[in-house]
Amino acid sequence: MSHYQTLLTRAREIATLKSVSALTQWDHETYMPPAGADNRAEQEAILASLVHERATSKQMGDLIAACEADRSLLSDPIVAPNMREFRRDYDLATKLPTDLVEEWARTSALATETWKKARVASDFKAFEPALTKMIALARRKAECYGWPSGGEPYDALLNEYEPGATAKQIDAIFTPLRARLSTLIQTIAAKGKPPSDAPLNASVPEDRQHKLGTRVLKALCFDLDAGRLDVTTHPFCSGIAPGDTRLTTRYRGERFTDALYGTMHECGHGLYEQGLPKLARASVGKGVSHPARFGEPAADAVSLGIHESQSRMWENFVGRSPEFWHWLKPMADEEFGGALSKFSADDLYRAANTARPSFIRVEADEATYNLHIMLRFSIERALLSGDLEARDVPAAWNAAFKDMLGLTPPDHRRGCLQDIHWSAGLIGYFPTYCLGNLYAAQLWETINTAGKAPGAADDVPAGIPDLKAQIARGEFGPLREWLRAAIHQHGRRYLAADLCQRITGKPLSADPLLRHLESRLKPVYGL
Amino acid sequence: MSHYQTLLTRAREIATLKSVSALTQWDHETYMPPAGADNRAEQEAILASLVHERATSKQMGDLIAACEADRSLLSDPIVAPNMREFRRDYDLATKLPTDLVEEWARTSALATETWKKARVASDFKAFEPALTKMIALARRKAECYGWPSGGEPYDALLNEYEPGATAKQIDAIFTPLRARLSTLIQTIAAKGKPPSDAPLNASVPEDRQHKLGTRVLKALCFDLDAGRLDVTTHPFCSGIAPGDTRLTTRYRGERFTDALYGTMHECGHGLYEQGLPKLARASVGKGVSHPARFGEPAADAVSLGIHESQSRMWENFVGRSPEFWHWLKPMADEEFGGALSKFSADDLYRAANTARPSFIRVEADEATYNLHIMLRFSIERALLSGDLEARDVPAAWNAAFKDMLGLTPPDHRRGCLQDIHWSAGLIGYFPTYCLGNLYAAQLWETINTAGKAPGAADDVPAGIPDLKAQIARGEFGPLREWLRAAIHQHGRRYLAADLCQRITGKPLSADPLLRHLESRLKPVYGL
Repeated sequence: MSHYQTLLTRAREIATLKSVSALTQWDHETYMPPAGADNRAEQEAILASLVHERATSKQMGDLIAACEADRSLLSDPIVAPNMREFRRDYDLATKLPTDLVEEWARTSALATETWKKARVASDFKAFEPALTKMIALARRKAECYGWPSGGEPYDALLNEYEPGATAKQIDAIFTPLRARLSTLIQTIAAKGKPPSDAPLNASVPEDRQHKLGTRVLKALCFDLDAGRLDVTTHPFCSGIAPGDTRLTTRYRGERFTDALYGTMHECGHGLYEQGLPKLARASVGKGVSHPARFGEPAADAVSLGIHESQSRMWENFVGRSPEFWHWLKPMADEEFGGALSKFSADDLYRAANTARPSFIRVEADEATYNLHIMLRFSIERALLSGDLEARDVPAAWNAAFKDMLGLTPPDHRRGCLQDIHWSAGLIGYFPTYCLGNLYAAQLWETINTAGKAPGAADDVPAGIPDLKAQIARGEFGPLREWLRAAIHQHGRRYLAADLCQRITGKPLSADPLLRHLESRLKPVYGL
Repeated sequence: MSHYQTLLTRAREIATLKSVSALTQWDHETYMPPAGADNRAEQEAILASLVHERATSKQMGDLIAACEADRSLLSDPIVAPNMREFRRDYDLATKLPTDLVEEWARTSALATETWKKARVASDFKAFEPALTKMIALARRKAECYGWPSGGEPYDALLNEYEPGATAKQIDAIFTPLRARLSTLIQTIAAKGKPPSDAPLNASVPEDRQHKLGTRVLKALCFDLDAGRLDVTTHPFCSGIAPGDTRLTTRYRGERFTDALYGTMHECGHGLYEQGLPKLARASVGKGVSHPARFGEPAADAVSLGIHESQSRMWENFVGRSPEFWHWLKPMADEEFGGALSKFSADDLYRAANTARPSFIRVEADEATYNLHIMLRFSIERALLSGDLEARDVPAAWNAAFKDMLGLTPPDHRRGCLQDIHWSAGLIGYFPTYCLGNLYAAQLWETINTAGKAPGAADDVPAGIPDLKAQIARGEFGPLREWLRAAIHQHGRRYLAADLCQRITGKPLSADPLLRHLESRLKPVYGL
């Protein structure tokens, strides 16, 4: 067997073990009986250690080095990006010393428990020592990873979630977005007439919501022979394995759009997972082939930002459009009995599009949500650079919140203590939520235009100029196919920023998202 | 760490990996989307190889040998039986050469596919070559394992499922059982008046059956915080891990007792799993302790026969009693609406107790079922000894069937091709089904008697003389506690035959099962 073939076999074993781990985590959040939690922690620990052992083994490093030394391999258009990503994964996995990995795991587990209590009590002082420790570890982690010249410590952590992105690039997009978005939201608040919230408050039993959600999934071309929809507390999508992508949702009897949009959001993630070339037969130069590509970087998702662009596109760009409600309303009436009968499709569309500053990120609307993210990004970046210390977070948070959203959090529970991420060690993760909205908007403009964007790559499919009419007819297949062809099928072949450039012909910018939000919100608010 | 402590740690890692494997298998049979099957096979293969690697490692063998050499350890009443079973497991796992293990896996996978087609076509000739191969492999496997002096090849295979049992011992119980059971069944057929089948044919929707089944599980003290009930095609119970025991069932709208008794059967297995001391803190001599006993043989089930005795006891001895129906009927009326309103509890009890020879084992009643098992045992034993060859199975089967059940199978689908076991390599497994009934009956007589059986061990709890009255009141806790104290808590500490002797004061015999069946069936048939 060639070195590359061996490398693929090892990578596939690692991917298979990770898929087992994903299944145990999915079960943990869906069907596991409560008393099974202790054993489940042991299962997950042993699987994580098996994966880590293999992913950081000397054999893996030697195989990667041997393949890198083979110039003919590196000229192959599939192998070259695979090798780039194999190297990246190996370096990320091996750059951290064992003591840091262990301390990170221990400290974040303890910090999460501390955070849970501190949040309930709205007591930042109780959380501060844990946050101080996590930030110190995050700074050390950044030092171990290193960052590109001209960059900063934050880049090192961001790279775990959004390969190739830098804080400076993101800041260059976030800064104009922040200013213009604040203006838009203030204008709406000052001069707009808010739509009625009443249609969202219709009471709909869970089983009826589930039936409608399942019909929507089928219409959106989510393959239920290769996936599922289940119920959990904090909804997620898990692309467990080839042919096995699992969505979760959460039903609230008194606000059916929570589950509807939650399901569409996870469906967007799920369509990406189902569109990755995990099952495609690989056949590359020098007689190298593999029964399926699962385990290759080229069969994996490119970044959290691009993943989120898929979920946001289906949730917001499709799901909050007037055309979508035009299609959905008769179906919702069928499934929900008379619950929505006194509202029109237009009432529902309007109710689903608001911009109203509020304290909690996960409850924020499509527009103000981005401000929540930018706030966290600026605080995280300052924490990493040393410009800010943990003890100063509440003051910095409240000042920025007032500045960006015009409100002062009444307590830390609704302020800087609301999210799990910092205690859980997910530092550098937040910006990808907003990047998702930005990528979605820029892709959406391209898709909705006839032909191809100027400067787009040859293999990018032409746009779908009548997409809105298709949505009004419930035809979602062409959009799914477009996303597959332009994005999903490439896996990690192109970095996120390059993918954006080759599809839209331009680097990522704030303009499309601002245009989208303005065109959605102004008419709804009568402006 | 002492050798014994290290051995427990290694054993626990193996048990944890097995628990992951059990979860993937449970998911395979319940929620996995169809397209996930290929990856699931890879997951299961990699987990099986990780378990096998560890269970057969030189380190494991060395640790066992080191502990065996430590006489002070072996005088400990918990450690000694653990060591006996560690040795047994290690020898079983290491006695087979790798080429045999691999050929076994390959041949049985192919044979199962061949069997599936041959069964549908009722074509024994199509299956014969596969069966010939499996029997040849089974003979070779028996040679590798070896058997006790005075024994026979069959003992070697039986030992995988029913440790310590021999074909000769089983034959000594089966022979009188067979003769007297045949007589009973013939008498009933000739002179008895069969009860009406009508109550069982009531049509009950699945969700109502599920509600009743869940209420029954709770009454039987199955802990639903440490377990679940789900739906599958071929019901089973999986004691996945400490705190995580999962039951499955299958609903048929037109015969609600299938699911009811199926659920009670699996519940019996589940109560055993929940009663094993997996979570108990172990504290043994020389300062050895362990946070939980999961992974120790003493925390594992002793044999398939004893496991089956638990399922059969709850299904048949409890579930088909008049007292049970007296308790259940009002609850069934509540859950089933009017479906059973025209029948009395007595009608239902009588309908649930029949003896009518039929062709298919899995559809057989409580009495004739045992004859199906004895037939397979005699054929398997002859195949192993070389007295019978694969090609002669159909003739031997049909002759024995006519002799034991008075019927001639109309085709091989309803004859020797009906079960998956031989193709799947489960040779030596069948007798444990009948052993389960025999153990259940002998235990049942002891439980229903005041005080303790003469000759029983000191720590065996006294019987529950008013058990029937308790059942009529829906009080199942004392029976569950009795089974925990007498059986479950010991895990593999005593071999099955020794467990029977120390609880009932006697070796296993056919008499209690015959007494039970006679006392059930004769009144129902008016004899």
